[in-house]
Amino acid sequence: MDATTPLQELKDKVIAFRDERNWGQFHSVKNLAMGLSIEAAELQELFLWKKEDEIPGWLQSEAARQRVSEELADIMIFILYIAHTVGIDVTDAVTNKIRLNAQKYPVEKCRNSNKKYDDL
Amino acid sequence: MDATTPLQELKDKVIAFRDERNWGQFHSVKNLAMGLSIEAAELQELFLWKKEDEIPGWLQSEAARQRVSEELADIMIFILYIAHTVGIDVTDAVTNKIRLNAQKYPVEKCRNSNKKYDDL
Amino acid sequence: MDATTPLQELKDKVIAFRDERNWGQFHSVKNLAMGLSIEAAELQELFLWKKEDEIPGWLQSEAARQRVSEELADIMIFILYIAHTVGIDVTDAVTNKIRLNAQKYPVEKCRNSNKKYDDL
Amino acid sequence: MDATTPLQELKDKVIAFRDERNWGQFHSVKNLAMGLSIEAAELQELFLWKKEDEIPGWLQSEAARQRVSEELADIMIFILYIAHTVGIDVTDAVTNKIRLNAQKYPVEKCRNSNKKYDDL
Repeated sequence: MDATTPLQELKDKVIAFRDERNWGQFHSVKNLAMGLSIEAAELQELFLWKKEDEIPGWLQSEAARQRVSEELADIMIFILYIAHTVGIDVTDAVTNKIRLNAQKYPVEKCRNSNKKYDDL
Repeated sequence: MDATTPLQELKDKVIAFRDERNWGQFHSVKNLAMGLSIEAAELQELFLWKKEDEIPGWLQSEAARQRVSEELADIMIFILYIAHTVGIDVTDAVTNKIRLNAQKYPVEKCRNSNKKYDDL
Repeated sequence: MDATTPLQELKDKVIAFRDERNWGQFHSVKNLAMGLSIEAAELQELFLWKKEDEIPGWLQSEAARQRVSEELADIMIFILYIAHTVGIDVTDAVTNKIRLNAQKYPVEKCRNSNKKYDDL
Repeated sequence: MDATTPLQELKDKVIAFRDERNWGQFHSVKNLAMGLSIEAAELQELFLWKKEDEIPGWLQSEAARQRVSEELADIMIFILYIAHTVGIDVTDAVTNKIRLNAQKYPVEKCRNSNKKYDDL
């Protein structure tokens, strides 16, 4: 339940899962970043050959949403592993990044624009 | 603060940032999955040519941790965009995925092992 | 000139470039695979927020084609590094893979279909 | 045979394979860049949890080399699809990129260094 669960509870569950299996020994940050990238590719693969206008219909099916949900969870698990390993508070990191992005992308300059900040 | 902030608060901030810029028009799930994958590559790039035994020392510096933190935040922001667009509760998705993973990777079979479940 | 140049000539150039800089010491296959994946993300980034119907027009410009060309070259350079390191003949590898793909995707079953072989 | 086969021959084979299946209709450059990135992740996955010093031994086995070879071929096929679609001569692209890289990474400044050009 996103509405009520602090992120720390998820982090604790993920680390408990890992420690029961003693997998910390494989979890260098470099490996974890690699793992996250592989999971991100699996998420992309769900959409690869689909045309943009087929996707909303596809996402109506519970099975499709379940597959997206599982791939998203896999990526999230790697985020939590990395945050735990490096000692990052994800909530603070996102809050700070939104602040930085707001400076790079001021509303008046980038409203309705798909340009990168260095092309604005 | 991961200890006290429910994920929904982050989701709300991220969506408010997007809606002020009217960027929802570019945010098809396919584009968001692509964007997430690109951010995952930027995280990897921080570690690319570093040897495993150089990384813990590198991570001692505040500047290094800041760069990891920003890349991790970028990925997290895409997770929240996708979750919002598809209507996925991230907390539930991770909780369910841990349950599935526990079946695929029973403690007694995979403790201390770096094998994938289909090679166990 | 693709019409007349055997791949080995490109491989030789790429390896000569590397050896002048003594970079072989960083080129474990794992690092090279990571590097290739990062370059693949940079190629994707050129298309990220563009709508499908904007892209053909964008590709009319020489500058756009030059950027695609450079990103494609970066990926190709990593392919050649990996092939050299592992001892793979790329021409043979592709020829064999086309043969395998032809079995997985028989013309009569997959003509005009965007399904993966396990969904055919 | 990399020693004798011009790249164009591979391109022709790959395009013939595609055209028999009438798959050109799915092959927007954006989709192809996405596909390439997914294949790059599959190559990475072969190395994910392996420690650097396990990999040379693993690569001794013919089966391991075959898996690397197939993943490398998949990536190469996407390079050829993209080059064909955009009208890029891969040999020229790589030759030009090596020239650019030689300017960014002059031998005397970057010999034995794993730094990016902007940190040199």
